[in-house]
Amino acid sequence: MKRIAVYPGTFDPFTNGHMDIASRAALLFDEVVVAVYAKPSKNVIFSSDERIQMIEQALSNCGNVRVEPFEGLIVTFLKQVGAKIIVRGLRAVSDFEYEFQMAHMNRELWPEAEVVCLITAKSYSFVSATLIREIASLGANLDALVPPHVAAALRKKYRG
Amino acid sequence: MKRIAVYPGTFDPFTNGHMDIASRAALLFDEVVVAVYAKPSKNVIFSSDERIQMIEQALSNCGNVRVEPFEGLIVTFLKQVGAKIIVRGLRAVSDFEYEFQMAHMNRELWPEAEVVCLITAKSYSFVSATLIREIASLGANLDALVPPHVAAALRKKYRG
Amino acid sequence: MKRIAVYPGTFDPFTNGHMDIASRAALLFDEVVVAVYAKPSKNVIFSSDERIQMIEQALSNCGNVRVEPFEGLIVTFLKQVGAKIIVRGLRAVSDFEYEFQMAHMNRELWPEAEVVCLITAKSYSFVSATLIREIASLGANLDALVPPHVAAALRKKYRG
Amino acid sequence: MKRIAVYPGTFDPFTNGHMDIASRAALLFDEVVVAVYAKPSKNVIFSSDERIQMIEQALSNCGNVRVEPFEGLIVTFLKQVGAKIIVRGLRAVSDFEYEFQMAHMNRELWPEAEVVCLITAKSYSFVSATLIREIASLGANLDALVPPHVAAALRKKYRG
Amino acid sequence: MKRIAVYPGTFDPFTNGHMDIASRAALLFDEVVVAVYAKPSKNVIFSSDERIQMIEQALSNCGNVRVEPFEGLIVTFLKQVGAKIIVRGLRAVSDFEYEFQMAHMNRELWPEAEVVCLITAKSYSFVSATLIREIASLGANLDALVPPHVAAALRKKYRG
Amino acid sequence: MKRIAVYPGTFDPFTNGHMDIASRAALLFDEVVVAVYAKPSKNVIFSSDERIQMIEQALSNCGNVRVEPFEGLIVTFLKQVGAKIIVRGLRAVSDFEYEFQMAHMNRELWPEAEVVCLITAKSYSFVSATLIREIASLGANLDALVPPHVAAALRKKYRG
Repeated sequence: MKRIAVYPGTFDPFTNGHMDIASRAALLFDEVVVAVYAKPSKNVIFSSDERIQMIEQALSNCGNVRVEPFEGLIVTFLKQVGAKIIVRGLRAVSDFEYEFQMAHMNRELWPEAEVVCLITAKSYSFVSATLIREIASLGANLDALVPPHVAAALRKKYRG
Repeated sequence: MKRIAVYPGTFDPFTNGHMDIASRAALLFDEVVVAVYAKPSKNVIFSSDERIQMIEQALSNCGNVRVEPFEGLIVTFLKQVGAKIIVRGLRAVSDFEYEFQMAHMNRELWPEAEVVCLITAKSYSFVSATLIREIASLGANLDALVPPHVAAALRKKYRG
Repeated sequence: MKRIAVYPGTFDPFTNGHMDIASRAALLFDEVVVAVYAKPSKNVIFSSDERIQMIEQALSNCGNVRVEPFEGLIVTFLKQVGAKIIVRGLRAVSDFEYEFQMAHMNRELWPEAEVVCLITAKSYSFVSATLIREIASLGANLDALVPPHVAAALRKKYRG
Repeated sequence: MKRIAVYPGTFDPFTNGHMDIASRAALLFDEVVVAVYAKPSKNVIFSSDERIQMIEQALSNCGNVRVEPFEGLIVTFLKQVGAKIIVRGLRAVSDFEYEFQMAHMNRELWPEAEVVCLITAKSYSFVSATLIREIASLGANLDALVPPHVAAALRKKYRG
Repeated sequence: MKRIAVYPGTFDPFTNGHMDIASRAALLFDEVVVAVYAKPSKNVIFSSDERIQMIEQALSNCGNVRVEPFEGLIVTFLKQVGAKIIVRGLRAVSDFEYEFQMAHMNRELWPEAEVVCLITAKSYSFVSATLIREIASLGANLDALVPPHVAAALRKKYRG
Repeated sequence: MKRIAVYPGTFDPFTNGHMDIASRAALLFDEVVVAVYAKPSKNVIFSSDERIQMIEQALSNCGNVRVEPFEGLIVTFLKQVGAKIIVRGLRAVSDFEYEFQMAHMNRELWPEAEVVCLITAKSYSFVSATLIREIASLGANLDALVPPHVAAALRKKYRG
């Protein structure tokens, strides 16, 4: 039986930290679906389509990874794609508390759902999408923090 | 002398976790006033009246509990109802930091105010009103997380 | 019905922070039993009798507080003295984690046990018995951190 | 290629929380090796052989799990059994900090080592081996916290 | 060579906690620049000019401190004023996580930037600008928490 | 007036993380005294003299750093060497809680003492002396974690 894992997030934008987690998940499971939250309540700078396209480009050499939009409950999406595993990256204590709460909620909604937490590489442990957006808007050089095509898209968005 | 405790919150909505804390407080003190924050700065999905009515229904068999709206400083409300005790539920480390800060602030404003923290039952330790609103808006079944009449009200709000 | 609370600890030594919690508990409940852990696994500098006598002296003007030794499970002691309430002081995040774990364990062992956490006054939030022992052994002046007779006892112990 | 995961620990004793993590890991990977730390620096109440036998009995109906002693570095053990995955259970914030530190250390020692953290079921989130030993020594009933044969072994150890 | 430190913040309003950190920094370094974030994304109650004037008044007897507005990246501002040191106050665990993330990000952007964290005096450890704004809007007396002229300005803002 | 800072610790052994903090402190202050705790209550693997000699070798090209043993209260040592500044490295949340407690205690003992916390470089944020001792005893290669002469001393200690 194929083990399929879902890596959900808003990915606004997709950072080197996200890429690290997605590509490590691809080694652990037979198939990984990066699930891009299409309608987040918070404002996004990139549309759902832009984010999906950026992630596909970033992960183009992971053969067993695909990218899909999702709405609604993550457990519903899991059932749709035949997955039981949710992958999450942990960077800090506050991440842990949130993931802990979500993991228990998801198992309440669907007891077969399993959350697998990977620990973000220390080089990226300080990189959050929120921080990237903030410093991108201030004109910082992001080449070490996001894939090159994401850095280019951020430059265009904020300087354009 | 009667010991009166105030259990303040926004309760948008009132969850099984809140009910757990309120009914445990009712065993500890002579009288418990559930103080419903009437004008929170953040948006609420239920009006002050709706929230009060929901809580009264949920706690109808606790003889020594009543529900009241409040505005302004909690220490002012304490004095109005003749109480010196604030009851709070703790679920996680981040709750603790916030309660710690509030407890010191309230004692700065009124040194006689005492904060009593109860530890939320482990079954509800992952249930927050924010998370309930989020998953209610996505159509999840909430029967295990909120009282039945609250679940019905949420369904009506989001599907209506 | 009288509400009896137990405030358990090793109290080696009894600090101003402990005194703050005990005297505040005495305002919240009809009776408070300070339960002195008689046979801790870790080494103590004061015997069980010395610690009991020190606490009695420190709390001599709280009419509704008494001090007793205990061994074994705290829930067994609660039943012996007719109490259902455990009082604990919280100072820091790491205290919270431990109290959280103990509260759930105690409710597993006896579902009627209730843990009430009070937040240590900010003046004493950095004072732990461990730290007091450490700096007492180095000859520091402890007059602001422990009751005078405890300071005297520590001086005698370490200089004697 | 078979994906083999190692679940290392002292397991003194093996709790229901450990059993939860081990059996969930068995669903995620092709093979799970429970690695029992044979020579911990801290004192143990059960010998390495006793612990191995207890775990084998607890997990006897997980077909793809086996139990083995280990000494030395966990990354060396991983290489010996042909595994690249370390499984760990997270219960609390303080667990997270320790696991974070160990994960980075292990990847320093062997960059191919991957740490997968599972979140302990909320029913067992307060159960630690240390706490089990402590309350077992005080004569508490542990039937809800450890497998029946472990409860029996603890009773024998402490009452014998 | 003169050691210049920058103490950046929004300071909306400047509290006794901020004053404590700024004046302690003035003892540690040859020159301190309080850098007032002029265009924060969040709403402010005091304009950039009002905040600068308030801070200048509060720190008028620290000879080696000056106050300046800034925009954009803090590392850019550091270079403009010839500083390599960022001063930050820590009050709680959640502060620490944020500062940790920012410190690593700033060193990524400019490896010579050094972050120096001072621990807020325990009297002010519960005072945040957010909490001050909240209770000021509810009419609380703030004389113990902010400098007198800041208290007056808050009263005027909320009652005016 | 010269600003002298003291960097206290047990340094058993001195790691690359310690070296990072000490050399950054040497840029911030006129003089840095690395204060080696001579008689720690916990067992050490290197004698006070061995530790001092190792640190001197590691920091031989920091002209304004010297290494000295100390006993007793750190505030007493500060006064002896004419310093008012204590430097500490922060790696994780649990470090922060301990430093917070110690900083308040030290200011209680001597109000002029100032604690300056530096944030350990992310490459070393997972390296603790305890972990180094543990994996050294298991024969791991420590070349990336401690200075070469410390790695050699550890090898000799554990293999000798």
